[in-house]
Amino acid sequence: MTTNSTTAEGRLAKLGIHLPDAPVPFGAYVPAVQTGNLLFLSGMLATSGHAATITGVVGKNLDVKAGREAAYTAALNVLALVKKQLGSLDRVRQVVRLGVSVAATPAFTEHAKVADAASELLRDVFGEETVSSRLVFGVASLPLGSPVELEVIFEVKPHLP
Amino acid sequence: MTTNSTTAEGRLAKLGIHLPDAPVPFGAYVPAVQTGNLLFLSGMLATSGHAATITGVVGKNLDVKAGREAAYTAALNVLALVKKQLGSLDRVRQVVRLGVSVAATPAFTEHAKVADAASELLRDVFGEETVSSRLVFGVASLPLGSPVELEVIFEVKPHLP
Amino acid sequence: MTTNSTTAEGRLAKLGIHLPDAPVPFGAYVPAVQTGNLLFLSGMLATSGHAATITGVVGKNLDVKAGREAAYTAALNVLALVKKQLGSLDRVRQVVRLGVSVAATPAFTEHAKVADAASELLRDVFGEETVSSRLVFGVASLPLGSPVELEVIFEVKPHLP
Repeated sequence: MTTNSTTAEGRLAKLGIHLPDAPVPFGAYVPAVQTGNLLFLSGMLATSGHAATITGVVGKNLDVKAGREAAYTAALNVLALVKKQLGSLDRVRQVVRLGVSVAATPAFTEHAKVADAASELLRDVFGEETVSSRLVFGVASLPLGSPVELEVIFEVKPHLP
Repeated sequence: MTTNSTTAEGRLAKLGIHLPDAPVPFGAYVPAVQTGNLLFLSGMLATSGHAATITGVVGKNLDVKAGREAAYTAALNVLALVKKQLGSLDRVRQVVRLGVSVAATPAFTEHAKVADAASELLRDVFGEETVSSRLVFGVASLPLGSPVELEVIFEVKPHLP
Repeated sequence: MTTNSTTAEGRLAKLGIHLPDAPVPFGAYVPAVQTGNLLFLSGMLATSGHAATITGVVGKNLDVKAGREAAYTAALNVLALVKKQLGSLDRVRQVVRLGVSVAATPAFTEHAKVADAASELLRDVFGEETVSSRLVFGVASLPLGSPVELEVIFEVKPHLP
C-alpha cells in the first residue's frame, strides 16, 4: 500500500484510517449508481452492518459532539462504499456534492458543526482541491434512528492514472 | 399494447396497472427537466389532481401500512409523469436515484419499510437491472399534507430501440 | 449594463434588483462545483454575511409571508453566487432543479406558497423557458435558524453567446 500523500489512498494510509465493511442495502435499492462519470451514492448512515452505531436527535438527547461522531461514522461508510464500487479511492476526481441531513430539533441551529465532521474527513482523504458543494438540513428523523445521513455525488475519473 | 415482459411497458401491462393522469404543477415550476440524458422530476406526492389522497405524519396519525400506500400512490405518479414526458416507459435506461421523504415523528425508525413500497413498484416496472440508489429521510411535513414525497432522477435512452 | 430584457442580466437590471455579496462558506466546503455543464450550488439560506436575516419555523412563529421573504432572500443569494461563479447570469442555460426546504411544523401544508417566492424570482430573471423542476420539503430546522434553504442545479452554457 502506497503512503504517497498526494493520492487519496496514500492520505488514508497516512491518517491510519481503517475502513469498515461497505454498507449493504436493506431494501429494494443498490448502494450506488453510476451514469456517465457521476457516481450517485445511496444515503450513508451512522451504521455498522444493519444497525445504527448511535441513535437519537441532536439538540434533544444528543449534543453536537455526538452528532459529529455520527457524521464521521457515516463518512467512513462513504469511503468504504466508494472503495468497493470503484476499486480505489484514487478514482475519485471530485466530490461534487455532499448533503448532510441531521436529525435535529426545531430549535437547533448548529447543523454546520455536525456536518463539518463529514466534510473534514472527505477533504482530508480526497484532498483540498476536491472539496464539495454542500447542503445541510435538520430533519425530523432518519432510518434506524441514525442522527445523520449523508448524500454524496462523486465525479469519477474514466481510468486509473 | 405489448405484454412483452422484458420491457417496462410490457411489465406494466402484465401487472395490470392503470396509470393515473400525470400530476400538473401548482406553482412556478415544470414537472420535469432533461439535461443531457438525465431527467430530473419534480417532487411527486401522494396526490390525485391537486389534492392529497391521504394526509398525516407516519408514527403519529398514520402507520407504516398507510405510509406505504402513500409511497405507492406517489410512485404511480412518477410512472404517469415519465410516460407523459418521454412517450414511453421503455425510454428509461436506469433509475439513477430515488429519494423518499416521509413525514415522520422524531421517534420513527422504519422509514425504509415505507420507502420500499415505492422502490418495489419502480423495480417491478423498470426491471431488476435498473434499480436505483436511494436516499430516505424523515421530514417534518410535506406540501398539501402528503405523508410521502419522491425525488427521482432517470437516465434516459437517446432513442427508442 | 445592458437593459436588454431578453437576457438574464437585462431582466435583472430592468427589475431594479441589486444583488448582495455572494455568500461565503462557513465550513469545509465550497460555494459551488461544476462538473461537465452542470453547476451544483451549496445550500443557499436567508442570510446576509454569516448571519440569518430572519429565523424561525413557518407555521409556528413565522407566517407564510415571512417564509416567502426568507425564500426571496435565499434566491437573491443564489443569483449573487451564480454571477460570482460564472461572471454573468447570462451563462445559465437552464435551472435544472430547485429544491426548497422550509423549516415548518408537522401541521403545515402551504409549503408551495413559500417556495413560489424563490421560483418566481428565478423565473423572472432567467426567463420562462428556463423554469426548473422543483422539490419542496418541510424540515425540522436549518443552519443558523434560517427558515428556508435552497438547493439549485444549473445547466451552464459552454461559452458566452
